[in-house]
Amino acid sequence: MFIPPALEQLVAHLARLPGIGEKTAHRLALFILNEPPDFARDLARSLHDVLERVTLCEVCFNLAELSATRRCRICQDPGRDAGLVCVVEGIQDLMALERAGVHRGVYHVLHGALSPLRGVGPDDLRMGPLLERARSGSLREAILATNVDVEGEATAAYLARVLAPHVARITRIASGVPMGSDLEFMDQVTLTHAFEGRRPMS
Amino acid sequence: MFIPPALEQLVAHLARLPGIGEKTAHRLALFILNEPPDFARDLARSLHDVLERVTLCEVCFNLAELSATRRCRICQDPGRDAGLVCVVEGIQDLMALERAGVHRGVYHVLHGALSPLRGVGPDDLRMGPLLERARSGSLREAILATNVDVEGEATAAYLARVLAPHVARITRIASGVPMGSDLEFMDQVTLTHAFEGRRPMS
Repeated sequence: MFIPPALEQLVAHLARLPGIGEKTAHRLALFILNEPPDFARDLARSLHDVLERVTLCEVCFNLAELSATRRCRICQDPGRDAGLVCVVEGIQDLMALERAGVHRGVYHVLHGALSPLRGVGPDDLRMGPLLERARSGSLREAILATNVDVEGEATAAYLARVLAPHVARITRIASGVPMGSDLEFMDQVTLTHAFEGRRPMS
Repeated sequence: MFIPPALEQLVAHLARLPGIGEKTAHRLALFILNEPPDFARDLARSLHDVLERVTLCEVCFNLAELSATRRCRICQDPGRDAGLVCVVEGIQDLMALERAGVHRGVYHVLHGALSPLRGVGPDDLRMGPLLERARSGSLREAILATNVDVEGEATAAYLARVLAPHVARITRIASGVPMGSDLEFMDQVTLTHAFEGRRPMS
């Protein structure tokens, strides 16, 4: 089956996106081709715009607009508690916490988690500025909110160790049975966490 | 939750793609942002390339490369039977038939199906050049391979009527129980089609 090379190229690029297989990429490419040309032009322009205008905050590695400061809105906000830092693996984790509105402090985004199996060590994560903030004595508490899986736990354990000399209070988010769940369907590790993390009822 | 406007724009454009909701669009946009900048640049370039280099065949409305002829590879291929035309709703249908290798003739792509409910009439489909081919007397057989649903059936019925004066043989693809299926799980319409379309065993 012959497909014009330019279309084949577009399919190949779309198929590199996460969760987009070749069949979906084909469908998307044909959709784009069937739309008025402005659709493809707008999408292409927004790709360039993102490269030109979006960067990572120099303090916490959250998303930031390219400007004089290179700091994200949260780091620039005087209403946020700069002594209370929440450490997350990715920007999507930060977004989830912001949507929940549970954190009034600032963040630090690692952009990954330690994974010896995949060859990801501390130097591959964005840890430097977090340690600098800790060493400067400006952090009262670090809330380790990495994912609750093997890599996230390992990352939290590592951070707890290196931050300990500089941060008075280091906490880990609770792990247990999520809201709306039957115990019957929970895995053993979650149940173990739920038991170990049990708290006295007021 | 503040998101840089350029990123928000990219999310909005991605979310206009079929099957991509806002959450997926977010994930894709962050993925693009985390990749080396060449990823976004390549994708943007391939979008422009498709606009510049891919067009529709002036004979059958299949995909074609922009060139002197503006005809697709199939219409240009002297090995294909130009008197045997297979009419399909979309380019993906053509691709599926080509992958199956079942058709040695040429195609005509309607780019849609008749749908009074959605206000799609004959003038909204690419029918003109098909009727021209039929009127010129160059078509021996038209195989109507529109989808087997209400709109596809209506489109096939309409085409059979308008093509009848000019094409000796007009056929419709068979409808019945697909390969690998239990009769138990087939719907009534499919079973009716299968019965009505029954053929003597050799």
